[in-house]
Amino acid sequence: MSDIDTGLAQIKSDFDTGAWTVDPDIIAPHLTEWRDKYFGNTPLMLTPRNTQELSEMVKICAGHNIALVPQGGNTGLVGGQTPMGEVLVSLKKMTAIRDVSVTNNAMIVEAGATLQSVQDAAKNAGRKFPLSLASEGSCTVGGVLSTNAGGVHVLKYGTTKDLVFGVEAVLADGSIYKGLTALRKDNTGYDLSRLFLGAEGTLGIITAASLKLFPQPGHVQRVMCALNSPSDALKLLDASRSGSNLAMFEVVPKIGMDLVTTHIEGQRYPFDAPHDWFALIDWEVATEEEGEAIASRVLERAFEDGIINDAVIAQSETQAAQLLALRENVSAGQKYLGGSVKQDITVPIDTIPEFFTRADAAVEAIVPGCRPVGFGHFGDGNIHYNIGAPEGVDRETFLAQWDAISHAVFDIVDDLGGSISAEHGIGVMKRGDLAERADPVKMSLLQGVKNTLDPHRIMNPRVLV
Amino acid sequence: MSDIDTGLAQIKSDFDTGAWTVDPDIIAPHLTEWRDKYFGNTPLMLTPRNTQELSEMVKICAGHNIALVPQGGNTGLVGGQTPMGEVLVSLKKMTAIRDVSVTNNAMIVEAGATLQSVQDAAKNAGRKFPLSLASEGSCTVGGVLSTNAGGVHVLKYGTTKDLVFGVEAVLADGSIYKGLTALRKDNTGYDLSRLFLGAEGTLGIITAASLKLFPQPGHVQRVMCALNSPSDALKLLDASRSGSNLAMFEVVPKIGMDLVTTHIEGQRYPFDAPHDWFALIDWEVATEEEGEAIASRVLERAFEDGIINDAVIAQSETQAAQLLALRENVSAGQKYLGGSVKQDITVPIDTIPEFFTRADAAVEAIVPGCRPVGFGHFGDGNIHYNIGAPEGVDRETFLAQWDAISHAVFDIVDDLGGSISAEHGIGVMKRGDLAERADPVKMSLLQGVKNTLDPHRIMNPRVLV
Repeated sequence: MSDIDTGLAQIKSDFDTGAWTVDPDIIAPHLTEWRDKYFGNTPLMLTPRNTQELSEMVKICAGHNIALVPQGGNTGLVGGQTPMGEVLVSLKKMTAIRDVSVTNNAMIVEAGATLQSVQDAAKNAGRKFPLSLASEGSCTVGGVLSTNAGGVHVLKYGTTKDLVFGVEAVLADGSIYKGLTALRKDNTGYDLSRLFLGAEGTLGIITAASLKLFPQPGHVQRVMCALNSPSDALKLLDASRSGSNLAMFEVVPKIGMDLVTTHIEGQRYPFDAPHDWFALIDWEVATEEEGEAIASRVLERAFEDGIINDAVIAQSETQAAQLLALRENVSAGQKYLGGSVKQDITVPIDTIPEFFTRADAAVEAIVPGCRPVGFGHFGDGNIHYNIGAPEGVDRETFLAQWDAISHAVFDIVDDLGGSISAEHGIGVMKRGDLAERADPVKMSLLQGVKNTLDPHRIMNPRVLV
Repeated sequence: MSDIDTGLAQIKSDFDTGAWTVDPDIIAPHLTEWRDKYFGNTPLMLTPRNTQELSEMVKICAGHNIALVPQGGNTGLVGGQTPMGEVLVSLKKMTAIRDVSVTNNAMIVEAGATLQSVQDAAKNAGRKFPLSLASEGSCTVGGVLSTNAGGVHVLKYGTTKDLVFGVEAVLADGSIYKGLTALRKDNTGYDLSRLFLGAEGTLGIITAASLKLFPQPGHVQRVMCALNSPSDALKLLDASRSGSNLAMFEVVPKIGMDLVTTHIEGQRYPFDAPHDWFALIDWEVATEEEGEAIASRVLERAFEDGIINDAVIAQSETQAAQLLALRENVSAGQKYLGGSVKQDITVPIDTIPEFFTRADAAVEAIVPGCRPVGFGHFGDGNIHYNIGAPEGVDRETFLAQWDAISHAVFDIVDDLGGSISAEHGIGVMKRGDLAERADPVKMSLLQGVKNTLDPHRIMNPRVLV
């Protein structure tokens, strides 16, 4: 029996089957992901019910050099959660909301809790947990922390990193790092909890987190504007800033809206005439009156300055939800373009128009007739630049150009001082790109930290660094 | 000649005297600090004029095992900036504001720039850099980042860590870490810049930083309330929250206000009758009318509920400044108590009243008649708990009880789940306390990170870890 087999056997004999499974039917959905890009395999899935149990199982793994891949809601987009022979660690049984403190504006939740359940628990306490993304019904706390998820509220509240006081994590030797503070000031050494945020499970497995809560806004005022260009969108972004009220600024091009309104049930254009670009804006305010006043002021000025062509002010929660659905369905609509090469990048906000001009030309030069759909979070510089296959070109033929297209886009991103991964992470998909493009001093520090916390490389070893 | 002497000689021969000095008159003020607690010495003070120059000098130091202590504005309170035989690195010649971008809401500044100059540059661009503390005229960017300074706006804007996109730093081998991004989303590995924040110079020397800017509030509404107890102060804190407008919530006890109004020129009580406790509150709002409306609503309700006894609403910027001066002068006033044992601690906000009850009893048991002045940032749980000598007891006799008092206070802090260093850091002063009290897993991670980035311990070696 190999050392690994010995370790696996020990786990099976030491723990009851509540803590692990080898049932292929149970495991199967954890081995694929929704874009059908990665197909994994694993000899064993751990399903720890608490931190102590995971700690003891990881100690056995450490003793037998057994590598682990942690998984939350399995919504990752860069292959970071799919085991390829490693033991899979599903946090799905650790879903407790351990504590909600209104006075401290903090809550402690376990890693397997869905983002939606966290938002709901905050709301029930009269508070807001502002992280919001399309997959919030299934993605989990451990996943969004490990990937430092972003979403639509970053320009007001920051990314996940900005919403966390500290974490509890099981380290590579099975010991437990206890960083579940809710203190707003704590200067007792390096920010160790922060290391696990965005680490994609390569330094340890997050088991719980202490999260920041915020006041619930009295009212969210949403508008959608029709406009001519990314450059006008930037002008509108500047014009939309109003104290700290601006909470969302998303932009979608015509092709994205066409895909959604053509292919997704119940989705309709809110404008009569066609337009080239669309911006979706939220302001968080105290009252409806305040919201209408800000919206009117900003839109009136934008019309006068020729920045926008048309606008819709949401008059009800239903209408507001309809406008957001148009934006949230762009990825789903994109499936109808056939194959898509998807890029999740950031550029400095003021270079967004230049990025579009250069990137559109670059991908056209590689695959003439391809159909870029560049949309997303203009308010924080993050563009989901997804390139659809040319009409009539089949998925496989087009996807064979993935690397060539990525390199061309990343070259432009690097040149503009941007990031090749905005909010999806590095995972398996971009690990080579990071190694190739990052400053050697940065790579050496990343490797140094990895070697310190996971010297035998058993924590998600094919991922990130 | 020793290896160290060889290295020092090489620096003196390789660089002109703009980059270093041995002049005792120039060096002297860098070897003491304002509380007269530490008296240092150094064979050489480096005064690099740019990052490259510092990098080259550190390479020589690394080659000859020469330890370094970085220093900004020399306002630190825990001995972290005072060399005891190490080479001193003053950043005072690196003061440039390299870039201010209004669209990106970001600025890049050098480590030696004062906090005041950063605030001013932001203001001139129509933006706000919200970090604000008593020493802002002399403390520097490198210092506030290295100590993760807090100040009075933490409950709205967070500590320094929350205000930084990334840093540039010279590492222990002299190489330069280039993390000066201004991207709001960048998921390309562990948050390396964050490691240097609060690291007190033990992992490298910060040479520049990319900082977050915020909208300038249209109006800041300030009030001071008179009340009976810390527990009423907490009720007032809850009652004062209004969307994201609450920007400051400071509390001072009667003894603190007595010291200030008795000993500091120009300071007067804003109330006719005596009271036991005082709260100072800021709301950042769009207009004066909005500020008055919030202040009236909160105060009216607080009077009705019996939480406050009296209140002053600032009617002008001058009056607002006068109210803040009362709070900012508490440390200066405390000097007139003779010797003081100063503690900078955080407890979970809802345990503040319990902290006062227990800590006051504990210190009275150690030094009967001692005079605790517990004031500061109730809004984020941070109390400056400074214990003055009993009347008639001389400074030295009282200060001999520093460790006994610290231990008693820290025991209570630990028991309440607080932090023994809120915003001043660990430095030399609390290094032993940290080692003694921190969880062993945490200590081992701190040491692991230190060993990875500074294997030969030349970066501020007597500090933190």
